[in-house]
Amino acid sequence: MESGTFTIASKALRELVNITPPIEDILASLPSGSGVLYLFNPHTTAGLTINEGADPDVSRDIIKGLEHIVPLHLHYRHLEGNSPAHIMALLTGSSLTIPFFDNRLQLGTWQKIFFCEFDGPRTRSVSWQILHDSAKASDQPRNQEK
Amino acid sequence: MESGTFTIASKALRELVNITPPIEDILASLPSGSGVLYLFNPHTTAGLTINEGADPDVSRDIIKGLEHIVPLHLHYRHLEGNSPAHIMALLTGSSLTIPFFDNRLQLGTWQKIFFCEFDGPRTRSVSWQILHDSAKASDQPRNQEK
Amino acid sequence: MESGTFTIASKALRELVNITPPIEDILASLPSGSGVLYLFNPHTTAGLTINEGADPDVSRDIIKGLEHIVPLHLHYRHLEGNSPAHIMALLTGSSLTIPFFDNRLQLGTWQKIFFCEFDGPRTRSVSWQILHDSAKASDQPRNQEK
Repeated sequence: MESGTFTIASKALRELVNITPPIEDILASLPSGSGVLYLFNPHTTAGLTINEGADPDVSRDIIKGLEHIVPLHLHYRHLEGNSPAHIMALLTGSSLTIPFFDNRLQLGTWQKIFFCEFDGPRTRSVSWQILHDSAKASDQPRNQEK
Repeated sequence: MESGTFTIASKALRELVNITPPIEDILASLPSGSGVLYLFNPHTTAGLTINEGADPDVSRDIIKGLEHIVPLHLHYRHLEGNSPAHIMALLTGSSLTIPFFDNRLQLGTWQKIFFCEFDGPRTRSVSWQILHDSAKASDQPRNQEK
Repeated sequence: MESGTFTIASKALRELVNITPPIEDILASLPSGSGVLYLFNPHTTAGLTINEGADPDVSRDIIKGLEHIVPLHLHYRHLEGNSPAHIMALLTGSSLTIPFFDNRLQLGTWQKIFFCEFDGPRTRSVSWQILHDSAKASDQPRNQEK
């Protein structure tokens, strides 16, 4: 079963952490294949996204934008005080799917994969699975009855 | 074909309904397996999300936050009057993928699965499929030619 | 390997483009099957979503809502000036999964699939894969050892 988990150490309260390098390493370590990689974030005050990674200012602008979009000091009821982080998690989403071909991510020119920390700094984990391996599917004819 | 549909009766205009128990029941009723469960919401004024389920105040804070984030009384053109619900649906997303192992959801400690009602109360439906069954994949060697 | 790419010509700075017809054509051209279609957007100032397509005013209201939700003139650092588009991309998401049965999309009554242009007009591309083909799975018993 091709699946696993890796950890991320965030360093700020709110931060986009580029996790493309560890994911590229995982893909490179697998038997040859093409398909779709699936990432799942088990945390409720964090998310996963794909966005521009060439200019680090984009990540900072995204965090700044989210701090304006989500009310930080509303009269929230959750006593832990991190309701804005839970809302940012909803807006971002808890999983990603990324196509890969011959063990290489098929990201766009400017795309990188980011873990979105909204209540750090913390040690976090992300799990992965190979959701679909089209190499296997293409090895055999699709309509087996013919 | 392992797939199906279940219904949800929302009770408020805007509400997060915990749908983890019916999903656990579906997984428990399937033959033994591990992989990824896929949920699809066919409604345009509702969404699906994963967030904290231990404290019900988090769900209420999320709804309260969304009511501040999305303008409720902008000069919208859609005559049905529910454009804010359509925008909340975009922000939330229409599908989810969740890893499972030995027929049990691999959610994080605080995570529950929620149907997000933004234009209720209504009877809604959600469809599901087993997107990937890694048990089947692991039963056979990956490189069949060797 | 059942996968491919198609292009979209957006005509405005911010616009929801209905891409349901080209996707229906792709599905119709494939061998008979059922499962889940996967769409991936490789651009960082655009997104993919499913929402109401019957009344075109909904698409316009969604764009209008996003222009109120995301600060357009914050003191952003990214010099290219399109940080609001990167934030809208995060809020929307970079991929979609849609169930299909007998080569037909299983969308809800009012649902259409939209490419979300946030920094146009431009020529864009979207890639697709058949993520899961349940017809194949149902052709063979799940527990092969029995």
